[in-house]
Amino acid sequence: MPETSVAALLRQIETVGADSKRGGYSRHVFDPAELELRAWFADRATDLGLTLETDNNGNLWGWWGAPGPGAVVTGSHLDSVPGGGALDGPLGVATALAAIASLQAEGFAPARPVAIAVFAEEEGSRFGVACLGSRLLSGAITPERALGLTDAAGTTFAEAATAFGLDIAALGADHETLGRIGVFVELHVEQGRGLADLDAPVAVASSILAHGRWRLTVRGQGNHAGTTRMAERRDPMVVAARVILAARQVAGASESVRATVGRIEAVPGGTNVIASSVSAWLDVRATSDREARGAVADIAAAVRSAAAAEGCELELVEESWAGEVSFDPELRDRIRAALGGVPVLPTGAGHDAGVLAAVVPTAMLFVRNPSGISHAPEEGATDDDCEAGVAALVTVLKELL
Amino acid sequence: MPETSVAALLRQIETVGADSKRGGYSRHVFDPAELELRAWFADRATDLGLTLETDNNGNLWGWWGAPGPGAVVTGSHLDSVPGGGALDGPLGVATALAAIASLQAEGFAPARPVAIAVFAEEEGSRFGVACLGSRLLSGAITPERALGLTDAAGTTFAEAATAFGLDIAALGADHETLGRIGVFVELHVEQGRGLADLDAPVAVASSILAHGRWRLTVRGQGNHAGTTRMAERRDPMVVAARVILAARQVAGASESVRATVGRIEAVPGGTNVIASSVSAWLDVRATSDREARGAVADIAAAVRSAAAAEGCELELVEESWAGEVSFDPELRDRIRAALGGVPVLPTGAGHDAGVLAAVVPTAMLFVRNPSGISHAPEEGATDDDCEAGVAALVTVLKELL
Repeated sequence: MPETSVAALLRQIETVGADSKRGGYSRHVFDPAELELRAWFADRATDLGLTLETDNNGNLWGWWGAPGPGAVVTGSHLDSVPGGGALDGPLGVATALAAIASLQAEGFAPARPVAIAVFAEEEGSRFGVACLGSRLLSGAITPERALGLTDAAGTTFAEAATAFGLDIAALGADHETLGRIGVFVELHVEQGRGLADLDAPVAVASSILAHGRWRLTVRGQGNHAGTTRMAERRDPMVVAARVILAARQVAGASESVRATVGRIEAVPGGTNVIASSVSAWLDVRATSDREARGAVADIAAAVRSAAAAEGCELELVEESWAGEVSFDPELRDRIRAALGGVPVLPTGAGHDAGVLAAVVPTAMLFVRNPSGISHAPEEGATDDDCEAGVAALVTVLKELL
Repeated sequence: MPETSVAALLRQIETVGADSKRGGYSRHVFDPAELELRAWFADRATDLGLTLETDNNGNLWGWWGAPGPGAVVTGSHLDSVPGGGALDGPLGVATALAAIASLQAEGFAPARPVAIAVFAEEEGSRFGVACLGSRLLSGAITPERALGLTDAAGTTFAEAATAFGLDIAALGADHETLGRIGVFVELHVEQGRGLADLDAPVAVASSILAHGRWRLTVRGQGNHAGTTRMAERRDPMVVAARVILAARQVAGASESVRATVGRIEAVPGGTNVIASSVSAWLDVRATSDREARGAVADIAAAVRSAAAAEGCELELVEESWAGEVSFDPELRDRIRAALGGVPVLPTGAGHDAGVLAAVVPTAMLFVRNPSGISHAPEEGATDDDCEAGVAALVTVLKELL
């Protein structure tokens, strides 16, 4: 009997990719933990009698009924940020499995094909570009650019994808697969306190902030920390500190902008060594594309002055960009009505649904997260709210089928 | 015929531990590169007919004549900082080998035992405490503290030392080995521009700055970079930026103090994740113990305010400390006179000679480094200056034997 409880499904993977150093989970595309989750999904999809496919870009599909146009597709991703929570990604996949199990248990016969999609590298934690699988599928990134992306160990996406078994010559926009999607609905744990504040278990999404990632690499002169006079230093770490503080200052001065440096790497990274270069990754989001780009320009200007004053060189590389997304208002209203008027919430988090919204009618459901914390071990949802998410997804699938 | 050219000796190891990512060399205690350098030293010492010993603390000794009290000891270390230069450490060892080869070639018969010492983990690049081998030997660190030190992979010094073959129960102050040292002379590449400015190839050392290392770990709340409002953040990266800038500000305001953050680690370290904790390592040096400790207190006070303002916790751990060292003035003057009045220079760099100066008469020689750069690939010395170093060491050994 396929499992209809999403909490029970999530318990099946609660040890996979657990990160004893950071806490939470580290599950990155094509790493052993992520491969184990793919195998788990394949087993659960098989339990439901779904037809399993891996598309040209490494995304998984489980089809209920013959794959074909006009399908109602739901799903999310299984990868995580380093030390992330248990639900960001897997909740949407497990909810989709539980919803189809429930529909099958009640003898529901879908009038159109139904599929569960599991998108690859949604977090961009390994290769730096978020939503890589859905971007490739939809043509939002070229295969050339994707193939050259590297992870922290220097492995290219081309190498990792080949090792996984993909034909890298076939990577990129996949019109056949895209053409099957009639509508895409992604359920996701909420990553703020919107639902907690409203005391409601489920919401439908209105929009996603414009967001992007930039790498700022500052190059100075590596030297001895003890023998180099302060006045003679060209220390890139001092400039990197200005990146962090400029991000805080620029975002702090705006209602709309969020800016974060969560990743920093000093080379060579010795305690008694003035660094020769430091890279800081900047994540910027805002309610409009213009405000997000303006914030990056303001931060870069502040850092450029600091680099010049320190005698350092600055390289600024845009690693990813996703403009503001407004989900299909007609679809959103239809879903909201089917769910009896649940709240409508915007989000600052990027999602595969945001990428697909450019090419197919797309909607999102959020499940309450009491702490509002996400991308951290404290992320959570009660079992009751997770089951409310399944019930909502069942209602939405019935509405759309 | 044993090699008398120090440049030729150094060429024998020019590929060992080369770091293609950082540039320069990464040779850390008990790693494959450092073990290869130990084997190279053993081979070269055997060529000279020296008796090889590894002491209880993992330091290497090559004895010319029977090991015994009153020995004239020279040497340095073979490990490096990450991405360090070719000479910091190996120059002193290779010069010692070349000097003994020269003395043997001219038929010199030493009246006292002579030894070359190679000290372990001088840079502290793997286990965080500089001069670990000489500190253990001289009792400047307890074996209990040393055994519990961990490297970046979580391996303890106890585990690494055991794997190397040390009996960790025998670790610590070694009075028999120490009692043999009549005098210790360490030759080292200069790590500033003192000799370049004076247009001289060799100097004798006067003193070493007081110096220490502190780890500042800031703990906040990991969260999502896109969904967490700026006003609700407890972001340890912002506080870590204040560590970097406070170090620059405090040291910049003093003629005597040098302060550096060259190593920083964010956990979990994701681009789209507000860090949950960030550690920054602070290296502080000054001409007096009081000034060094005062600078650390000033930096810590600034960081404490920043941590409180951000709602973060701050942990400050002293990882190592070495008070100001003035080398034995009588020995220094004797050596200077034997070398015809070479310059006398202080240094901001720590050395095993500085640790041993507390327990035995100790001196240092410096060889000119045209760029003044050290702990970086640009560190260097001309072959002529390296050979001038050998000639100076030969003169000093004859003077002391």
